[in-house]
Amino acid sequence: MANLNTDLLTPSVAIDCVVFGFHENELKVLLLKLKNIDLWALPGGFVHKHVDIETEAHNALELRTGLDNIFLKQFHTFGSIERNDTDHNKMLVDKKVIPEEWFPWFNQRFISIGFYALVEYSQVKEPIPGPISEACEWCSVNDLPPLMLDHEHILTVAHETLKKELNNQPIGLNLLPKRFTIPELQSLYETILGKKLDRRNFRRKVMSFGILVCTNERRTGVAHKAPLLYEFDEASYIKANEAGLSSGW
Amino acid sequence: MANLNTDLLTPSVAIDCVVFGFHENELKVLLLKLKNIDLWALPGGFVHKHVDIETEAHNALELRTGLDNIFLKQFHTFGSIERNDTDHNKMLVDKKVIPEEWFPWFNQRFISIGFYALVEYSQVKEPIPGPISEACEWCSVNDLPPLMLDHEHILTVAHETLKKELNNQPIGLNLLPKRFTIPELQSLYETILGKKLDRRNFRRKVMSFGILVCTNERRTGVAHKAPLLYEFDEASYIKANEAGLSSGW
Repeated sequence: MANLNTDLLTPSVAIDCVVFGFHENELKVLLLKLKNIDLWALPGGFVHKHVDIETEAHNALELRTGLDNIFLKQFHTFGSIERNDTDHNKMLVDKKVIPEEWFPWFNQRFISIGFYALVEYSQVKEPIPGPISEACEWCSVNDLPPLMLDHEHILTVAHETLKKELNNQPIGLNLLPKRFTIPELQSLYETILGKKLDRRNFRRKVMSFGILVCTNERRTGVAHKAPLLYEFDEASYIKANEAGLSSGW
Repeated sequence: MANLNTDLLTPSVAIDCVVFGFHENELKVLLLKLKNIDLWALPGGFVHKHVDIETEAHNALELRTGLDNIFLKQFHTFGSIERNDTDHNKMLVDKKVIPEEWFPWFNQRFISIGFYALVEYSQVKEPIPGPISEACEWCSVNDLPPLMLDHEHILTVAHETLKKELNNQPIGLNLLPKRFTIPELQSLYETILGKKLDRRNFRRKVMSFGILVCTNERRTGVAHKAPLLYEFDEASYIKANEAGLSSGW
């Protein structure tokens, strides 16, 4: 069991990270299975007194995934008093998930700052469990195991935020190969939104963003109808990411 | 000087509220002038241990504005370690803005949860200063007084968020009279965005939201060209507010 030097930590403040993984048209989420019980948790943790919250979120994810360049976005801070659940914390001690001396720290009122990330999950070689967990796995967002405290709510809010942000932010860089077809980009959107989209409307809308460059090459060199390959124009992509897509006012 | 019973408060956690006021096509923000020095602050405060963060934000604003029904939206949590500034806190003691016994509490590392609100500011009869301030006033966002710590940054992030959300959220309910003309609605958008908009594009875009109902009455009963009066369809407005406007996927 790792040491927990609470003198170094910011009281009352935690972070939770919702890491969505996209691979072969499936949306999954990275979860930790707690030791000794059938209960799962979002990766995250506490905030050291001399560390920015964004840095702490990156550090937590690097520990779990080995990736040091994950794009993380703060999406909401959860501050309901119902998040503090003494019975739950006692149960964690009873089941030896945490040692008894950690109980006072765990049993504080915590507010938690939520971050989300979206990664091509084949990049994550072997997710690494943390000090109170025994496994770290990709789970389907449509078939979640039991989650501790309000972690399912945090996950739902992250997914809803991601869906809404598809209206305002570009997506796909680092998730798709450098060159991709419009149907492949559409699959990414459909996976996140959880629904089928109209092919022609989708094409018209993504082309209007002005972030795609046609390479004039096709997926195969043979078939006449093979779809054209596109790339993101990185400068326009970054600009759209900062300013928002629908700056139509 | 009010009492500060820190036993009742959540360590490390603060809230800051950016209250935008709209009135006669001007965008202002509600600020508190600290006692004894030329330094201003956003309304906000600390979080009681047994109070949800959203409730605490509402309470803080009710104390300052007298309004108990302000629509507040959490927009970002500020957690840089540079927010803690011991020199600044010593200065607050030196200038007798806060009593010396409050110094240890003020000098913690705080993360601050930012909320914003948009109100018709003529509804606020007489803004009320707090325990460490001597005035509470509406200041123009384009001509701000000196603000403490990172409050100007918090304000800027709130304004940028509001501009972006005009792409995704309806706006105007409780800010405009029940019946309004499209040019009046356009003025509200122009004030927030800080720029002029094309009349025809604006009309086309807001009509596409499906939240406006034409009353078939005109601003005046006389002139033939007087603009038509519209109302929000409240059910559609609320739905668009929850689901986002551009659900065009």
